[in-house]
Amino acid sequence: MSLLSHQIQLLRRPVGMPSQNDFIQAEVVLPELREGEVRVTNQWLSVDPYMRGRMTEAKSYVPPFALHSALDGGAIGTVQDSRHPDFAVGDRVSSMLGWRDSLVAKADQLTRLPDTTLPAQLFLGALGMPGMTAWVGLNRIAKLQAGETVLVSAASGAVGSMVVQLAKRAGARVIGSTGSADKVAYLKTLGADEVINYRETPDLDAELTRLAPEGINVYFENVGGAMLDAALNNMAVHGRIVLCGLIEQYNSKGEASGPRNLSQVIRKRLTMQGLIVFEHWQHYGEFLAEVIPAFEAGALQAEETIYQGLASMPQAFIGLFEGRNTGKMLVKLD
Amino acid sequence: MSLLSHQIQLLRRPVGMPSQNDFIQAEVVLPELREGEVRVTNQWLSVDPYMRGRMTEAKSYVPPFALHSALDGGAIGTVQDSRHPDFAVGDRVSSMLGWRDSLVAKADQLTRLPDTTLPAQLFLGALGMPGMTAWVGLNRIAKLQAGETVLVSAASGAVGSMVVQLAKRAGARVIGSTGSADKVAYLKTLGADEVINYRETPDLDAELTRLAPEGINVYFENVGGAMLDAALNNMAVHGRIVLCGLIEQYNSKGEASGPRNLSQVIRKRLTMQGLIVFEHWQHYGEFLAEVIPAFEAGALQAEETIYQGLASMPQAFIGLFEGRNTGKMLVKLD
Repeated sequence: MSLLSHQIQLLRRPVGMPSQNDFIQAEVVLPELREGEVRVTNQWLSVDPYMRGRMTEAKSYVPPFALHSALDGGAIGTVQDSRHPDFAVGDRVSSMLGWRDSLVAKADQLTRLPDTTLPAQLFLGALGMPGMTAWVGLNRIAKLQAGETVLVSAASGAVGSMVVQLAKRAGARVIGSTGSADKVAYLKTLGADEVINYRETPDLDAELTRLAPEGINVYFENVGGAMLDAALNNMAVHGRIVLCGLIEQYNSKGEASGPRNLSQVIRKRLTMQGLIVFEHWQHYGEFLAEVIPAFEAGALQAEETIYQGLASMPQAFIGLFEGRNTGKMLVKLD
Repeated sequence: MSLLSHQIQLLRRPVGMPSQNDFIQAEVVLPELREGEVRVTNQWLSVDPYMRGRMTEAKSYVPPFALHSALDGGAIGTVQDSRHPDFAVGDRVSSMLGWRDSLVAKADQLTRLPDTTLPAQLFLGALGMPGMTAWVGLNRIAKLQAGETVLVSAASGAVGSMVVQLAKRAGARVIGSTGSADKVAYLKTLGADEVINYRETPDLDAELTRLAPEGINVYFENVGGAMLDAALNNMAVHGRIVLCGLIEQYNSKGEASGPRNLSQVIRKRLTMQGLIVFEHWQHYGEFLAEVIPAFEAGALQAEETIYQGLASMPQAFIGLFEGRNTGKMLVKLD
């Protein structure tokens, strides 16, 4: 019996905002299982902004996606067949073999999900890479202290919504920035002390001065652009900027323009540090030990935006840059 | 007998490049010495880029200079009269009461120079604030390790020339950037491994790739602009950028443009940190204990560019932004 896998391939490298036409769905025959291999059917595919970077040819911290072969990314699935002693049929596993509905992998490409009654797809969001990113940025990069003021951009996204909640739990005052009235309301339910709807705030600089008259101690940056300029003007002395994402630039066709007021970094003796979560992965167990019990106790929440079916993957991905997600963007497979 | 002091005052706040007409020389009568006060005649006045920031009204880490009163800055002088037990006639002292030929100060505004046969004016340059800035940036901010590659802009200036020498002593490979053939030659005598004349290098990015194929570990930034863009593109993973000065922006009339490739900070997990030396001053003794013996042994050198007479102070200051100094810019009083 030959088993088919459906997968989304990159047809051409997007210029500017990606479009549906940059992607194509293909069907491939899965190979027979060899010794040490496992066959998995995916239920959940992760949709993340960082994937945009890999669609260009530019050298980055991970190699660019190849054209005409399956894209990859986080995925949660169920073992269907196994020729490795560590995996049994029915096991829930995560992998980086997303953008496809089924796969054959070597055992070391799979991770069995921790034992919890929480929904499996949380391991792509709040309990996975985005949640870990929030935790690393606040704890290991910014070294957030109780009583400090935190600003986070894209606050209602998968990373941002965990930044808001983890910062509140750490005793910080939290200002979130987001782009719609619904998202403002959502951030209030997460405990954000103040929320800025940046689309309706003509003077971000003045608004931050009003909301953080003593200055911002930690800026968790996911966006770039005008908010970074405004944040730099409103940082407190010795403030820390965690540079996690610059989503505003990801689809820019030319070279992006940087902050116009970099001199604030000197004046206020700021530290700006780039964060890529993978190099902190040895702390993932520590992170889970903190956040799994908090989710089980209902003390942390995670919102999800779910698209249905493999074919919706490109639209879900494009939706990230149109602000269509609240919390984690996911594609659910049938 | 009334004693006169001549001083340079700020007549109006410069817009863009300062001009001679922004300054005026005034004559004031020094007050009679009261208990606890000391009268000093200055011999050397310090000329520093940071003074430009204080000529604008913008709030910074030090208050702006007031119009129509004496400017201030580093100075070295000799005690002429004293009503304080810690200071005797003939003592060599440093103060922040520059831009004038004589002064009356409270004892706590003066610091007696350490006991050394080295020229007194070194305490305005290599043994003073600029040298200390280099030392703090390399040791306390960048935490430079032997074998790393250091890039420094404005490398032939008072700070840069100490960065070059201290980094070489720490076992680093050093690339300096400067703006004339004479300065290139000077930097070679200081031990720089590679020197870029940025005025004659059309593609800074490619030149840095050629000179630092393994990447730059520490960028000591005094300038900003195109060199910062090029450096960001050529930083090594986990590189550190010490943001010490952005002299290219100091005379800019509008808002400066920032680095166009800030995403490199994320990709390479860089740290960019602002440095203001004053908040590290508790380590000044440690710095002197290291560098005074090195100067006495001839293992460190300091070049000076000397203008003569108080009236030349504005021209010396403007000259900083025209690249007229090699090493420390000083004004010598008769």
